[in-house]
Amino acid sequence: MASESGKLWGGRFVGAVDPIMEKFNSSITYDRHLWEVDVQGSKAYSRGLEKAGLLTKAERDQILHGLDKVAKEWAQGTFKLNPNDEDIHTANERRLKELIGETAGKLHTGRSRNDQVVTDLRLWMRQTCSKLCALLWELIRTMVDRAEAERDILFPGYTHLQRAQPIRWSHWILSGAIAGNPLGVDRELLRAELNFGAITLNSMDATSERDFVAEFLFWASLCMTHLSRMSEDLILYGTKEFSFVQLSDAYSTGSSLMPQKKNPDSLELIRSKAGRVFGRCAGLLMTLKGLPSTYNKDLQEDKEAVFEVSDTMSAVLQVATGVISTLQIHRENMAQALSPDMLATDLAYYLVRKGMPFRQAHEASGKAVFMAETKGVALNQLSLQELQTISPLFSGDVSHVWDYGHSVEQYAALGGTARASIDWQIGQVRALLRAQQA
Amino acid sequence: MASESGKLWGGRFVGAVDPIMEKFNSSITYDRHLWEVDVQGSKAYSRGLEKAGLLTKAERDQILHGLDKVAKEWAQGTFKLNPNDEDIHTANERRLKELIGETAGKLHTGRSRNDQVVTDLRLWMRQTCSKLCALLWELIRTMVDRAEAERDILFPGYTHLQRAQPIRWSHWILSGAIAGNPLGVDRELLRAELNFGAITLNSMDATSERDFVAEFLFWASLCMTHLSRMSEDLILYGTKEFSFVQLSDAYSTGSSLMPQKKNPDSLELIRSKAGRVFGRCAGLLMTLKGLPSTYNKDLQEDKEAVFEVSDTMSAVLQVATGVISTLQIHRENMAQALSPDMLATDLAYYLVRKGMPFRQAHEASGKAVFMAETKGVALNQLSLQELQTISPLFSGDVSHVWDYGHSVEQYAALGGTARASIDWQIGQVRALLRAQQA
Amino acid sequence: MASESGKLWGGRFVGAVDPIMEKFNSSITYDRHLWEVDVQGSKAYSRGLEKAGLLTKAERDQILHGLDKVAKEWAQGTFKLNPNDEDIHTANERRLKELIGETAGKLHTGRSRNDQVVTDLRLWMRQTCSKLCALLWELIRTMVDRAEAERDILFPGYTHLQRAQPIRWSHWILSGAIAGNPLGVDRELLRAELNFGAITLNSMDATSERDFVAEFLFWASLCMTHLSRMSEDLILYGTKEFSFVQLSDAYSTGSSLMPQKKNPDSLELIRSKAGRVFGRCAGLLMTLKGLPSTYNKDLQEDKEAVFEVSDTMSAVLQVATGVISTLQIHRENMAQALSPDMLATDLAYYLVRKGMPFRQAHEASGKAVFMAETKGVALNQLSLQELQTISPLFSGDVSHVWDYGHSVEQYAALGGTARASIDWQIGQVRALLRAQQA
Amino acid sequence: MASESGKLWGGRFVGAVDPIMEKFNSSITYDRHLWEVDVQGSKAYSRGLEKAGLLTKAERDQILHGLDKVAKEWAQGTFKLNPNDEDIHTANERRLKELIGETAGKLHTGRSRNDQVVTDLRLWMRQTCSKLCALLWELIRTMVDRAEAERDILFPGYTHLQRAQPIRWSHWILSGAIAGNPLGVDRELLRAELNFGAITLNSMDATSERDFVAEFLFWASLCMTHLSRMSEDLILYGTKEFSFVQLSDAYSTGSSLMPQKKNPDSLELIRSKAGRVFGRCAGLLMTLKGLPSTYNKDLQEDKEAVFEVSDTMSAVLQVATGVISTLQIHRENMAQALSPDMLATDLAYYLVRKGMPFRQAHEASGKAVFMAETKGVALNQLSLQELQTISPLFSGDVSHVWDYGHSVEQYAALGGTARASIDWQIGQVRALLRAQQA
Repeated sequence: MASESGKLWGGRFVGAVDPIMEKFNSSITYDRHLWEVDVQGSKAYSRGLEKAGLLTKAERDQILHGLDKVAKEWAQGTFKLNPNDEDIHTANERRLKELIGETAGKLHTGRSRNDQVVTDLRLWMRQTCSKLCALLWELIRTMVDRAEAERDILFPGYTHLQRAQPIRWSHWILSGAIAGNPLGVDRELLRAELNFGAITLNSMDATSERDFVAEFLFWASLCMTHLSRMSEDLILYGTKEFSFVQLSDAYSTGSSLMPQKKNPDSLELIRSKAGRVFGRCAGLLMTLKGLPSTYNKDLQEDKEAVFEVSDTMSAVLQVATGVISTLQIHRENMAQALSPDMLATDLAYYLVRKGMPFRQAHEASGKAVFMAETKGVALNQLSLQELQTISPLFSGDVSHVWDYGHSVEQYAALGGTARASIDWQIGQVRALLRAQQA
Repeated sequence: MASESGKLWGGRFVGAVDPIMEKFNSSITYDRHLWEVDVQGSKAYSRGLEKAGLLTKAERDQILHGLDKVAKEWAQGTFKLNPNDEDIHTANERRLKELIGETAGKLHTGRSRNDQVVTDLRLWMRQTCSKLCALLWELIRTMVDRAEAERDILFPGYTHLQRAQPIRWSHWILSGAIAGNPLGVDRELLRAELNFGAITLNSMDATSERDFVAEFLFWASLCMTHLSRMSEDLILYGTKEFSFVQLSDAYSTGSSLMPQKKNPDSLELIRSKAGRVFGRCAGLLMTLKGLPSTYNKDLQEDKEAVFEVSDTMSAVLQVATGVISTLQIHRENMAQALSPDMLATDLAYYLVRKGMPFRQAHEASGKAVFMAETKGVALNQLSLQELQTISPLFSGDVSHVWDYGHSVEQYAALGGTARASIDWQIGQVRALLRAQQA
Repeated sequence: MASESGKLWGGRFVGAVDPIMEKFNSSITYDRHLWEVDVQGSKAYSRGLEKAGLLTKAERDQILHGLDKVAKEWAQGTFKLNPNDEDIHTANERRLKELIGETAGKLHTGRSRNDQVVTDLRLWMRQTCSKLCALLWELIRTMVDRAEAERDILFPGYTHLQRAQPIRWSHWILSGAIAGNPLGVDRELLRAELNFGAITLNSMDATSERDFVAEFLFWASLCMTHLSRMSEDLILYGTKEFSFVQLSDAYSTGSSLMPQKKNPDSLELIRSKAGRVFGRCAGLLMTLKGLPSTYNKDLQEDKEAVFEVSDTMSAVLQVATGVISTLQIHRENMAQALSPDMLATDLAYYLVRKGMPFRQAHEASGKAVFMAETKGVALNQLSLQELQTISPLFSGDVSHVWDYGHSVEQYAALGGTARASIDWQIGQVRALLRAQQA
Repeated sequence: MASESGKLWGGRFVGAVDPIMEKFNSSITYDRHLWEVDVQGSKAYSRGLEKAGLLTKAERDQILHGLDKVAKEWAQGTFKLNPNDEDIHTANERRLKELIGETAGKLHTGRSRNDQVVTDLRLWMRQTCSKLCALLWELIRTMVDRAEAERDILFPGYTHLQRAQPIRWSHWILSGAIAGNPLGVDRELLRAELNFGAITLNSMDATSERDFVAEFLFWASLCMTHLSRMSEDLILYGTKEFSFVQLSDAYSTGSSLMPQKKNPDSLELIRSKAGRVFGRCAGLLMTLKGLPSTYNKDLQEDKEAVFEVSDTMSAVLQVATGVISTLQIHRENMAQALSPDMLATDLAYYLVRKGMPFRQAHEASGKAVFMAETKGVALNQLSLQELQTISPLFSGDVSHVWDYGHSVEQYAALGGTARASIDWQIGQVRALLRAQQA
């Protein structure tokens, strides 16, 4: 009964193997990305076999030479895939055998395809993380350059999208540049995991766990979340209503219907990719959930996720760099958006400095805001007499409060929006950039 | 200051448009899938323009004729994409103009590309849902055929993966077939949404909402969740330890290292795709979250998600059908896995029928299980005397309890595991299949 | 060796049961929400047992009477939980036994706790869906009332957050009201699933599948995604920069630091809940993925998800209704935000009506926009002579283009922004509301 | 028109504030967990204010004293919440004012509630991570203790759930212990982020980013994914079919219906929590996506996620430790599950050692497997003559291949399953445990 008598009920196909299953099972369409690291890994492995006495020196050299030929064919685009090559490992081994004969069959002594798959992916990710890091540092460098050049431009800081207090434009730029930072840390972590100086502790765990993939996908998700927030800000700042910034034509597109429009497609696409990248991370964790230990074919899902996310990150980081480096800012509009009510906190601090507890001062300043609103004037147009009906602590020097430049200079604590503080932040990020290059 | 003076700081490229942005923005690599529905939609629209008096009959015919030529070029693989064709809509319009001249420019009177995008996708999904439905029904038909042919085979039912009670093998098969059912409902919903008999109520909402995409992705996620559970069962049933079923060679693969192995790759891949498909659903919802109303470029993410999920579902449903139709079952192993302790509930029911409240009967049966374990014998090897020390209600007819065939026949309520109940279930699913074909 | 000799290595506790495990296993802290439906289900079941001859009429009445007492204790808050009551089902059964004695033990003849769990949850969800629907219809009714009263107010329509064309304020409101609609459909689906008129087809599937939970969570996620987008719009419209709307104080909060601020906390919270609700949906699907068939304890995760999401939806729908019903709109600001360049499409249509193909007209209108920008004047301030340098088709009647009211009236197709079209949409939504009440 | 004239259309409530909004907005029901760190943070801040000259020494001491009283009330359970206390920060400040009067109002000079929220949460997470780490190390210690004691027990290693090669039971245990490891790294990362030795670089970013929350939730998700896989293995190993392990009664539950059953509820619950925890991570990232920079009320979602995940992890780690420490293993069943076909790879290696290339040896071994299957005998029952028909390289010493103990000893590379290799792994994990304690 257990003998293979073909399909029992229904089914489309006749013959030994369902062609749809073959295609479903095959990974060659995407894992060909791994050709270079597969050859690299096999070369290292053949050296190991020779040391272990499982290959003679001559056999090892024959294999190394053959693998170099395989690599050359890939590099020149002349490698011909065979319909039976179900993955890159099979393809390279098949070709090696054609090139050097039976000795090729010794290359895989004592290693399974699962070992190869996971080693290749780790090698590939080491390369990729390094490339993505370079792109990220380029973005950060662009941001810090702008931050330095434009640090005297003030505009409204927002919380809850309500105008809060005047801040330097550079303060905003640097908040984005710093958000990119975590990569510095994570990349260390990945690099440490991938440098192969350390050996995986347990062979079952080594073929089975995909922490390095999950962590890469999560790093990308978190990085995209930051970039989606930066994009949201810039999209808002670029609306007619805000008019703080203007996107370069190189990163905008027109409307097919409305001749007057210029849309921030680049920023919208960056924002949207946060979903796509996170979807891949969510998908991988769901695939891993509840899987029995060691290798199961389910793990094959890791590669397409990593390849797609890597491509997406690469494009996003370059477009973001381009957007930031060509962005025009409208400094007059920024200045015009500052209004005296944004100095209400400063007005409270004025009273604090005269000895009033902050909570009372906050209330007094709130009364001033309400008085100005009621009278239909700006907060700085209340007369001293009017202010003194709120608190006798107000005196002539209150007029100094109404200077935006003076306001921002108060926030001189590290991380704040004062000129010195911004310079310090620029210095910190530049130090990171230098450390990175070293 | 707002004039376009090019990049200010950093940046890679020189010239009017960043080529990476162009690629990032372009959707032609994947939305070419839409060529047929794009032509179909444009043909319908040109007829509408003529009725509205915006095209003459001659112009309309010229456009219809030109669109047919465009479609022919796509169908024959001779359509040549142009580097400036950023999406399928632009490509088709550009080509139409080359073929019929300036009249082509009238085709898009009063509709934006956003309208086109969403209409095309709806048309494409109508086709796709129809194809996927056919594949799903094929899977269900295969399952019900097997269920009918194999309804006399008993094996253990499990809860918590612990052997529970004897059930018919067909009962298990039908639980899977029925889990596929919801599509019947959802497809109605999608079909209703896509039939265009009804008009979208609000033009802003029409270009902006992607409920039909989100619902499709969620239907696919839920369907894959069911299939991942069916795969899990079959993987377990196919282990050496269970040995209930054996996968056809057509859906298994060998090990590169271990000659004796045959791995259930097909089922593992199906299980893994639940993660991938759900990842796309999660990604789309995250992209939609908090988006301002009407069209934003973020919505472009919908298409790749839909295309990939559609391809995945199509492969999964066909492979699942193949697996089920060629699966060998080991009926002797199934029979051997039945053991008298699985009739402990029946033993309780025996006492219930003699008048004991169920909770007491459950306890009494538990005592019998414990007594058998202590004595190291099977539950049905306890003597009548021994049973009577537990309850005087036991008498000679207790021997009828130890018949597995008799046990399953008790569950004759609709949905149960009795022969008649299974037949009824088969009838219900067949009725659905017939209703579907009509 | 298999005998239970207690812990072998490490471990904290001494004794038969680990108290942390007991707490981990227990569901009574949250499933007490189900007390009412659990009693309701048991009453129905005892009637079934009597019909099947497994209870006498007297026993059935004793049980029904006892269950009523149990329910009364819950309703009056006098039901005392026992440390051993691990879930609501055990608790109610234990109490019933205390109240009516051994007959209580007959109630569970032939049904497992898994049956009870899933039946109770279905009953509870039937109630909950009905309550949530009522709240959703209340929100829709509020929106359509406003839409009707304010249909003469025009403001900019946006795509990509760029001003596009003038639209009616009511058009925006209705796009939100309509987005709520899908519930109408889904609720039908849920109701159909829950009405128990139909019997579940397969007993294994019945205790194992949680489609009705997953679909509820997905409906909630999609509904929240819509509400997050509506919130995003209103947050933007409420910024100083847009100043189209003003939130009632009842739905805003002040800043602890900045006296002048009023933050749209209500809308931000609604927006944020899209993440929380979707997280529950994602969590459940991940829990279901790859689970063996029939009941596994993993399924216990369903209830907390459903309870939390139900509470969240209930609060969100009520707060959203409150926000919409008290929202102030600034019609002068809305009017001021309209600018002649938003009529560039109308200018193209003007030329189309004079016989120019749309693509050429679009280009001509684009030239006019560019000319106005270059000259630093508004689009409607270009003289007829200037326009005629772009196309000789321009004549005196072009002045009619510059009337916003006239512009919106052009979009009289169903779903458009013309007065008649808005009235039709209001009528459609009102018809749904009436159908709902019937 | 912008004046507040109350609700315009619909709405439930009358008065200044909607009570549902108040409840929706309030976070006190869950952020009371933060009472201790809130007091701790305020004490540190008051010292900072004194150094900055904004408080006198006397005022500072008055505040410190008052805060100590507040903390005492919380610790003793006598702190009385007020209906207006919308969060823990407001509650503590309100109480401080009642205790020490107006000086309390000076405490919040120059810090916003957003600062407080984020600082408190960071402080709380520092404590929590430390507690969770201790629990995780306890689990790892338990695992390594068992691994050491049971290293001479062999059982089948599986890939694709198919029996692959004999391995030591300790090899499996250690693969789980090692999977817990990553926390070591991540905790460093979190600790580094939370130690406040470093200052946040940018004030906007400091209140706005929630990387430390997202990373915690992702660490928990990944950790739970590992534990879900370990649980899956143990659930399988505990089935009747595998019978390798038996769960202690302390971590099992019986069936309400079937007297003979003992269900692995503890492991199923652990497996299910992977979904719940990941759902929280997914929810937070979705909430963060596209949020404007700086503080938005949406960020309030972070706390409930962190609290729930922390509770879940704490229970899961303790239950897992209990399960592992009390688990019984059935060594005879493990031994019986080993079968000669699992040595087919060793048979190939035998030929490799005689000089045959691995790919040919793999094929030869495969032929032997097929020959044994055809003859219906075990692989080790093929006679030497029969083997020699496959390859003349087989000779009398092939009998050494059929020793399982000998087989595992071959895998002596670091990470392998040989006794020495397992000892090395135990040593490595013990070294980590020691490093941890130091």
